[in-house]
Amino acid sequence: MSYGYAGKILAMDLTSQKIQKTSTENYFDAELFVGGKGLGALILWRELKPHIDPLSPENVLVFSTGPLTGTLCPSARMCIVAKSPSTNTFCDSHIGGHLGSEIKFAGYDAIIVRGKSERPVYLWVNNEEVEICDAKHLWGLDTFHTEEKIRNERNDPTIRIACIGPAGEHLVKFALVNTERYRQAGRGGIGAVMGSKNLKALAVQGSGQIRIHNLESFIRVAKEAREAILENKTIRARRRWGTARSVLFSSDRDLFPTRNFREATFEAAENLSAEVFEKRFWVKHKACHGCPVNCGKLGVVRSGTYAGTVVEGAEYETASLVGANCGISNHEAIVYANMLCDKLGLDTISTGNVIAFAMECYEKGMLTTKDTDGLQLNFGNEEALIKMIQKIATREDVGNLLADGVKQYSEKVGEKTGAFAMHVKGLELPGWGVRAAPGMGLAYATADRGGCHMRAWTTRHEISGVVEIVKSQQDYYAACDCLVACQFVKDVVGKERYVQMLNAATGMQMTTDDFVKVGERIWNLTRLFNVREGFGRKDDTLPKRMLTEPLPSGIAKGQRLTQAQLDQMLDEYYELRRWSIQTGTPSKEKLRELELNPVNS
Amino acid sequence: MSYGYAGKILAMDLTSQKIQKTSTENYFDAELFVGGKGLGALILWRELKPHIDPLSPENVLVFSTGPLTGTLCPSARMCIVAKSPSTNTFCDSHIGGHLGSEIKFAGYDAIIVRGKSERPVYLWVNNEEVEICDAKHLWGLDTFHTEEKIRNERNDPTIRIACIGPAGEHLVKFALVNTERYRQAGRGGIGAVMGSKNLKALAVQGSGQIRIHNLESFIRVAKEAREAILENKTIRARRRWGTARSVLFSSDRDLFPTRNFREATFEAAENLSAEVFEKRFWVKHKACHGCPVNCGKLGVVRSGTYAGTVVEGAEYETASLVGANCGISNHEAIVYANMLCDKLGLDTISTGNVIAFAMECYEKGMLTTKDTDGLQLNFGNEEALIKMIQKIATREDVGNLLADGVKQYSEKVGEKTGAFAMHVKGLELPGWGVRAAPGMGLAYATADRGGCHMRAWTTRHEISGVVEIVKSQQDYYAACDCLVACQFVKDVVGKERYVQMLNAATGMQMTTDDFVKVGERIWNLTRLFNVREGFGRKDDTLPKRMLTEPLPSGIAKGQRLTQAQLDQMLDEYYELRRWSIQTGTPSKEKLRELELNPVNS
Repeated sequence: MSYGYAGKILAMDLTSQKIQKTSTENYFDAELFVGGKGLGALILWRELKPHIDPLSPENVLVFSTGPLTGTLCPSARMCIVAKSPSTNTFCDSHIGGHLGSEIKFAGYDAIIVRGKSERPVYLWVNNEEVEICDAKHLWGLDTFHTEEKIRNERNDPTIRIACIGPAGEHLVKFALVNTERYRQAGRGGIGAVMGSKNLKALAVQGSGQIRIHNLESFIRVAKEAREAILENKTIRARRRWGTARSVLFSSDRDLFPTRNFREATFEAAENLSAEVFEKRFWVKHKACHGCPVNCGKLGVVRSGTYAGTVVEGAEYETASLVGANCGISNHEAIVYANMLCDKLGLDTISTGNVIAFAMECYEKGMLTTKDTDGLQLNFGNEEALIKMIQKIATREDVGNLLADGVKQYSEKVGEKTGAFAMHVKGLELPGWGVRAAPGMGLAYATADRGGCHMRAWTTRHEISGVVEIVKSQQDYYAACDCLVACQFVKDVVGKERYVQMLNAATGMQMTTDDFVKVGERIWNLTRLFNVREGFGRKDDTLPKRMLTEPLPSGIAKGQRLTQAQLDQMLDEYYELRRWSIQTGTPSKEKLRELELNPVNS
Repeated sequence: MSYGYAGKILAMDLTSQKIQKTSTENYFDAELFVGGKGLGALILWRELKPHIDPLSPENVLVFSTGPLTGTLCPSARMCIVAKSPSTNTFCDSHIGGHLGSEIKFAGYDAIIVRGKSERPVYLWVNNEEVEICDAKHLWGLDTFHTEEKIRNERNDPTIRIACIGPAGEHLVKFALVNTERYRQAGRGGIGAVMGSKNLKALAVQGSGQIRIHNLESFIRVAKEAREAILENKTIRARRRWGTARSVLFSSDRDLFPTRNFREATFEAAENLSAEVFEKRFWVKHKACHGCPVNCGKLGVVRSGTYAGTVVEGAEYETASLVGANCGISNHEAIVYANMLCDKLGLDTISTGNVIAFAMECYEKGMLTTKDTDGLQLNFGNEEALIKMIQKIATREDVGNLLADGVKQYSEKVGEKTGAFAMHVKGLELPGWGVRAAPGMGLAYATADRGGCHMRAWTTRHEISGVVEIVKSQQDYYAACDCLVACQFVKDVVGKERYVQMLNAATGMQMTTDDFVKVGERIWNLTRLFNVREGFGRKDDTLPKRMLTEPLPSGIAKGQRLTQAQLDQMLDEYYELRRWSIQTGTPSKEKLRELELNPVNS
């Protein structure tokens, strides 16, 4: 472990104030658990007694890096691991920026925090020097000022800091850990775990290096990875538009949580689109250590009620949960709420959810202004949204109830509200509906920290994926049909072997790409034939029963494929094939590419 | 083209009785179109005038093989290509058995039949010798007797024959071409095209060889392909149970057409399962030339009403369309109907569809016994089913209407029946519903010969696929989370590069499999943690709203994920993970495999 890893694990007990350093090598089997989440999971498994209160001194907090963190590998970051107060499950919450690298540079692969300090403290790590410092003067500060103050005090603007805001101090169940103003370990209430230990911040300065075992090979692959990233179409869009790029995709496909997940398409989605943010808000791209994607978008509100608001965002998740899910269509109100959450230390996903839940209760008359400190909690009321965020962060009045998250709050408002309490195992759902993408249902149901979309994300497979599968199968199967290969073995024999057999049999020198292109050529040729016969998009349809009658029984009872879904798939399909979206006719460019010009002439 | 290909294309005009042989090399560019479907498509594109009547002499019939047909490549077969009388589209209809190989052995890559003979003929091809023979004595015979008679007359039991039965002679729009009793080019009415040309059969005897360019390499890959086939789990199940294996899978998942696609799960599916066929019907496996799968299952009914019935089947498609889709739950009636279709020359998929359609019209009172020659066409009436098959094959009375297929028949019965006329572009739908697998909707809508499931088959991707995707993403992402790699680049960087970087950085010697296994290990470890906290299957669920409230708007309007669907996915998920299906706890075997025993102890 003299390579890749920093080599030491730093551990401290805030109760006894003891600090300990162990060799990483002695700590765990890196071949089995590698680092990051694996190391964190191992520590929690070993150290935690079952059923402890996540907000008690018995919980353990692990700031965990991986063997590639701080290297040239694009975007290897860090995670913070603890038992979650939102869910009582295992939880790893990941955080970008530069803190992970700095911890490695300081000489540590992980920092373990146990116990609970009597008074507010922050942790100062300057390479070998480790100190538990008084944080009385920081307690109560928001995350922006906490970072600033520590940097100023230590007279070093390059210190990397993770800290909590008032929400973490007040043990809000969905309090986050913040770094560099706009990067967060958002989910699972890790900020509350810090708060419960009276740990306001971790501040790190590191100047060491990470030794690489085979530098030449490492640089070559890291460069390849970087190039692959920059060539990728989806990532190119993300470089420009960040995650907000997904807003219209999602709303168009009935995946966009709207008014507490009641709906899945938002009439004002255009207002929250990346195009609007780009034109009217963003000023600068931002990236994590070593990452060429720069998906972060820093913006400033230039005029109006929220003038002067500076924040990175809104990310897709914030736009969906704080925006559509609360019925808010003003993008400036959303970025203001976003900034407020970052500053006060609240996860925007859970915050958007719990307020949307309260709004639904209010609109249904299950809550009245008596229960909401006089706030008229209608969907779309941005002022109420902002006031409620402030109340939650300090557990002020009704905010004290919302601060426990949707699951507990719903139990308090009344059993009936369980029908629309949008969480799994206590973690409020992220911004992807499941009714038009059932695979996400399985992903949420089985994720290790509750309703989380970062453990598996089937949406693309289920939406565009199925269109891509149809096209690629049609092409590959048509190529196989030129060999008249049997349907039942096509996928098992595989194109590599078919091409090898074809070449060995005939003396051709086809590549697998050539072979698949044969299939695409034939698929376009038979399409040309059918177009010549008068067929086109108008005929690419399904029996009415499929499009209108829901299934009357069985596990998919109630389901049908809607005309709008079919149209959407056809749009994507023609685009993918480079056929006319209007008529379904192959384009001249496509025919030229397939050398079908002589045939077509 | 001295290798792989037989070298010649045989063409004849039945109007002029002229026979012509051309060098295959001169005929088409094999690098662009290869053979089989590609060659057939090219010929149809070149030779057919637009909008010709598919049953006129202007249609062209191509018996087309590929460069691997007749070689050691497992299961390279042949297809018959023509403009389809069912759909008026391009159509290639594939046929197994040994005919394709025989055509190659006789020296031909394809046989093109143009024009129309004045009197019934059959085509005799004995290597170089080609003859258009009188078939007056064969006209009217069923497919079984036609084959038998030709073999007897020529005193050669090894002749391979493709022929039509009464259905093809009577130009039934979904008449098939039969070979070796139980193998068919079933879809698209190719049998009617033969009938329209007065071509009763094609009989072939070949004794030549196919030259292979690089024999050593060819044999090596063919052997590899064979081994891959025999090792594959799905194929192993198919070797034993044939396609009928899919019956319960399909019915359990709401994909099984039942009573004219009104439902998608059949209460008597068990009766049609592979287990029942195996126990009570099958006696022998059957295979196409060179194929190790032997998916064909020959059976005999041993007693009762249908005693003595011998047929290969029922295939899944027949069980679903002639069975569940007509409400028939007696497997012996189904195999009898299957045998009848083969013998008379009818496609079972279209036949099942058109009769189910008539049954629905009858039950809805849109048809009465006056319209059905007195048949009581209720769903489930096996006697009526069998009588109707006989009427269709010879266009007897009401059979004359059904013989035109669902689309035309529906237009005749009345406009209202369009709501449940289950076809795309005139081709009756195969046995896979789309309401629980929308990707199949796109596949049907865009298939080149109408509602066909052989051009793309997304069902597995959509059903088990999504479970597999969730598991494999969870494992891979957990491995990436040990590197704390960013979500946004995981899939682009890819496991190969991550492992290369990890190895280069640390000096480890991990394979990509090891790396994914790290992820699976961590996923099981965090699960263990959560199990220790009391979590289990009971908690792996979703908010009620997702499971009960259909979407009120948008393209997926009306959709929800049902509890039964979620349960089904969870069952598959736990099984795939080797976790207890009851509790969701990792099994000891899985933990041992992942070297998590020390952790667990």
